[in-house]
Amino acid sequence: VEPALAELKERLTEIVDLARVGGVLAWDMEVYMPQTGGDARGTQLATLTSIVHRKLTDDRIGELLDDLEPWASTLPPDTDDACLIRATRREFEKNRKIPTKLEAEFTKARADAFGIWVKAREDSDFAAFRPALERILDLRLQMVECFAPYEDAYDVLIDDFDEGLRSEDVSRVFETLQPELTALVEEHAGERDDFLRGPFDVSAQDALSREIITAFGVDWSSFRLDLTVHPFAVPFGLGDIRLTTRYDEDDVNSLFTAMHEAGHGLYEFGSSPALDRTPLVGCRSSSLHESQSRLWENLVGRSLPFWRWFYPRVQETFPDRLGGVPLEAFHAAINRPVRSFIRVDADETCYGLHVILRYELERRLVSGDLAVADLPDAWNTRFEELLGLEVPEDRLGVLQDSHWASGYFGYFPTYLLGSVLSVQIWERAAEAIPDLSEQIERGEFAELHGWLRENLYALGSKFTPAETIERVAGGPIEPGPYLAYLRGKHGALSAA
Amino acid sequence: VEPALAELKERLTEIVDLARVGGVLAWDMEVYMPQTGGDARGTQLATLTSIVHRKLTDDRIGELLDDLEPWASTLPPDTDDACLIRATRREFEKNRKIPTKLEAEFTKARADAFGIWVKAREDSDFAAFRPALERILDLRLQMVECFAPYEDAYDVLIDDFDEGLRSEDVSRVFETLQPELTALVEEHAGERDDFLRGPFDVSAQDALSREIITAFGVDWSSFRLDLTVHPFAVPFGLGDIRLTTRYDEDDVNSLFTAMHEAGHGLYEFGSSPALDRTPLVGCRSSSLHESQSRLWENLVGRSLPFWRWFYPRVQETFPDRLGGVPLEAFHAAINRPVRSFIRVDADETCYGLHVILRYELERRLVSGDLAVADLPDAWNTRFEELLGLEVPEDRLGVLQDSHWASGYFGYFPTYLLGSVLSVQIWERAAEAIPDLSEQIERGEFAELHGWLRENLYALGSKFTPAETIERVAGGPIEPGPYLAYLRGKHGALSAA
Repeated sequence: VEPALAELKERLTEIVDLARVGGVLAWDMEVYMPQTGGDARGTQLATLTSIVHRKLTDDRIGELLDDLEPWASTLPPDTDDACLIRATRREFEKNRKIPTKLEAEFTKARADAFGIWVKAREDSDFAAFRPALERILDLRLQMVECFAPYEDAYDVLIDDFDEGLRSEDVSRVFETLQPELTALVEEHAGERDDFLRGPFDVSAQDALSREIITAFGVDWSSFRLDLTVHPFAVPFGLGDIRLTTRYDEDDVNSLFTAMHEAGHGLYEFGSSPALDRTPLVGCRSSSLHESQSRLWENLVGRSLPFWRWFYPRVQETFPDRLGGVPLEAFHAAINRPVRSFIRVDADETCYGLHVILRYELERRLVSGDLAVADLPDAWNTRFEELLGLEVPEDRLGVLQDSHWASGYFGYFPTYLLGSVLSVQIWERAAEAIPDLSEQIERGEFAELHGWLRENLYALGSKFTPAETIERVAGGPIEPGPYLAYLRGKHGALSAA
Repeated sequence: VEPALAELKERLTEIVDLARVGGVLAWDMEVYMPQTGGDARGTQLATLTSIVHRKLTDDRIGELLDDLEPWASTLPPDTDDACLIRATRREFEKNRKIPTKLEAEFTKARADAFGIWVKAREDSDFAAFRPALERILDLRLQMVECFAPYEDAYDVLIDDFDEGLRSEDVSRVFETLQPELTALVEEHAGERDDFLRGPFDVSAQDALSREIITAFGVDWSSFRLDLTVHPFAVPFGLGDIRLTTRYDEDDVNSLFTAMHEAGHGLYEFGSSPALDRTPLVGCRSSSLHESQSRLWENLVGRSLPFWRWFYPRVQETFPDRLGGVPLEAFHAAINRPVRSFIRVDADETCYGLHVILRYELERRLVSGDLAVADLPDAWNTRFEELLGLEVPEDRLGVLQDSHWASGYFGYFPTYLLGSVLSVQIWERAAEAIPDLSEQIERGEFAELHGWLRENLYALGSKFTPAETIERVAGGPIEPGPYLAYLRGKHGALSAA
C-alpha cells in the first residue's frame, strides 16, 4: 500500500500544482493581460489543460486506485486518505470519458471567447459575440455527449460545479422560490434612494472595502485585491488568495462585492493544511462556495448589527452624501428591492430572479429549444416578465455576464442555491454562537470565521457536496429558511 | 520527414508554452505575489520545470532529431527549419546531462531563496540570506558537475546565458576594460549635481517613462509596465510583453530604467512571427539582450540629440528642479561618473566596474576560492579598490542584486558585454541611417527600431550568439568601439 499511495499522491500533487498554475494564468488574463496577449494565453492554457487531463486520466492512476481501494475501504470513511481515494476515483472515471483533445479545444475556445465577450460587452454588440458563444455551446454539448446516456443533458453540466446535483432538484427549489420572490419584489420594491447615487470617491471605496474584509479575517500577507471587469476569487495556494473587485463612483456596491469575494477567499484560505497540494484542498462545490460569499455579503453585510458597527465609518468617509442619512434609512436602502438590469449589482431579493432567468434560458439552450441567435430576444422577454423592465441594450442584458463566454453553463443556479444554503448554515452558526449579533455589532468576526472554518472551510472537498451540506447544515438544501429570512427582513423594514 | 517534423514541432510547442507559463509565474512572484505565496509558487515552478525538463529530454526527441538531421543538412542553413533542428539538438544534448530531479530542486531552491533575499535585503542582513545562497550555489555547482570534464566550471555557467561564450573571452575583454574604465572614472568623476536630487513626483516619472518608451515603439496593446524591487522584462507571448520598473522620488533614474527594460521588451516583441511557439522565438543570449537594453538606455537615452528632443518635456514636468538648468548641464550630469553603491543606479562609466566586481567574485565563489561566508568582506574590499567607496551596509553592497538568489551565476558579465556590443551594433545602425542623430533629435525612432528589428530582433534565436553577433555587428565582441565611445563622450563633455 505505502508505495502505491505515495505514487498516487505524487501524481495528484503534480496535477493540483498544474491546475493552480492555470489559476494564475486565468487571473492574469482577466486582471492585467494586455489586449493582444489573449492568443498566446489561450494556447498556454490549452497546453496546460491537455497535460492535466492526460495526467489525470493516465491508466496508471486507475491501476493505483485498483490497488488502493481494498485498503481504503478498511479505513474510517472520514479520514483524509479514504476521502482522497473516493474523490480521485470519481474524478478519474469522469475525466476518462472526455477526450483530451476536446478538453484542450474547449479551453482554447473559452480563452478566445472571453476576449471577444469583453469587447462585445463594451460595444453592446451581441452579433459580434454570437459565433464565439455558438462555438462554446457546441463544444460543451459535445462534452456532454461523452456522458451519454444521461437523463438530462443539463445534469451533466451542473455536475462540473456541484457533483451529484440534478436539475430536477434545482427546479424544485426554484419553482418554490420564484413566485415567492416575485411577490416580495412586488410588495416591497421601490426606487433607489438618492443618497446611494454618489459620487463616492473610488479610492475611499477601496479603503473601506479593505477595512471590512480585514475585519472579516482577510490577512494581507496572504491575500490580494485587484481590479477586474467581472469580480472573482481564485486561490494560487493556501498562502496566496486573489480577490478581484470593481469600483463605480455612482454607488457603494463595491463594499458588498468585496465582502462577497472575501467569502470565497476565506473558504479557500481555510482548508486544512493537511489537504494542501491534494485534490481535496479547497471547495469544489459552487453552491457551497456561493453559500459563503452570500453569507458574508448578505447575512453579515446587509444586517442591521453590521451597519451599527460600520455605518459611522462610511458616514465619516462620505459626509456629503451620507452624513445626514440615519442608519435605519441606509439599512433600508441597501436592502430594498429595486428592479434593475445588472445581476451583480442587484439587491438580495431581486437577485434570485436574475438567476432564475439565466437558469431557464440555459436549460432551453442546452435542450436545443432555444438557438443562440434568439437568445437576446428570449432574455429580454423573460426579463420583463420577471423583473418588469424593458432591456434597452444587450450590454445591460444578455451580454452582462462572463459565464457563458467562459463555458460555464450550469453555474448560474449555484448562486441562488448558495443564497438558500447560506441561511441554513447561518442558522447553525447562530445556534453555536448565541451572541453572534452582538459580536457583529462590535465589529468582531473571529468567532464566526472560526466556526465556519472549523465546520466547513477546513473540510475542503473531502466529501461530496451533498455530504458536506448534510454535515454543516444538518440536512439537504431546503428553501424554507431562506424565504423566512427574506420575509422576516422585509417585514421588519416595512414595520420600521 | 513531414510527420517527424510535425511531431517534433508539436512537442517543442508544448515545451515553449510551458516555459512561457513559467514566465507568468515568475513575473507574478516578483510583481504581485503576497508574502506567504512563495511556498506554493516554488512548488508550482518546480513541478513545471520538471515537466519541461522531462519533455525536453524525452528519448523521442532524440529519435526525431536522428530522423530529421540528414534532411535538415540538405536545407539552406539559414532556413527556420535548419536552425530549429540545430538548436534543438544542442538544447537536447545539454539538458540530457542534468537529472530532472536536480533541475526541479534548483527551481524550488531559487523560489525559496528569492523570498529570503527580498527580506534580507530590506533588513540589510546577509546572515539571514547566507544559508539560502549556500544552497543555491551548491545546487548550481552540482549542475556544473553534470558537464564534467570541463575546462572551467564558470564556462558551464555562462553557457546558460550565452551559449558558447567562454570565461577566457570574458576575461580578455574585461582585462582591457577595467584599467581604462578606472582611468575614465578617475579623470571625470564628480559629485552628483544638486538638481538631480529631486524630489521628482513619482507619478510624473511614470508618465514620462511611458511617453519615452511609447516613442521608442512600445505598443500598449501588447505591453505592460509594472512595479517591482528589481526591474526586468519578460515575454508571455509575442503579443504580451511585461516590463517592470521602480520609482524613487530622489532621482529620475527611472527614465533610464524604463528605456533599458523597453530595449529588452522590444527585442522579444520583434521576433519573426514565423518563430512563435518554437524554441527559436525571442533572444536567448543575455549579452545580445543586454546590448539592446543598453543601446536604448545609453546610446539613445544618454545622448545629446535625445535630450534636445525630450528635455523640454522634463523641464515642464519638473519646473522647480530643472526649469533653470540648461540642457547641456543636464546632459553632462546624467553622463558624469559618480562613484556610488548601487549598480542599477550607476552611471554608464562606473557601471562596468560594478559588473567586473561581481564577475571576479563569482569566479572565486565558483572555483571554491571564496566561501559564501566571506563574500561580504570580499565584496567590500574589492568595491573600495574599484570604486573608492567604503560600503556601509550590505543592503548597499552584496545584497543589492537578485541574481544570486535566483541562481544566475554567470549572468553579470553579460551586462558589460552587452554595453560593449551595443556600440558595435550602434555603429552599424548609424551607417545604415545617415541622419540617425537628426531623427532622434526630432523624437523619431521608427527607422532605428525598424533597422534593429530587421537586422537583429527578427532573428530570434535562430543562430548561436556568436553567429548572430557576426551578422549584426560584422565581427566578434571587441572592446575598442565601446572605449572610443566613452572616451569621446567624456572628452566632448570636458571640452564643453
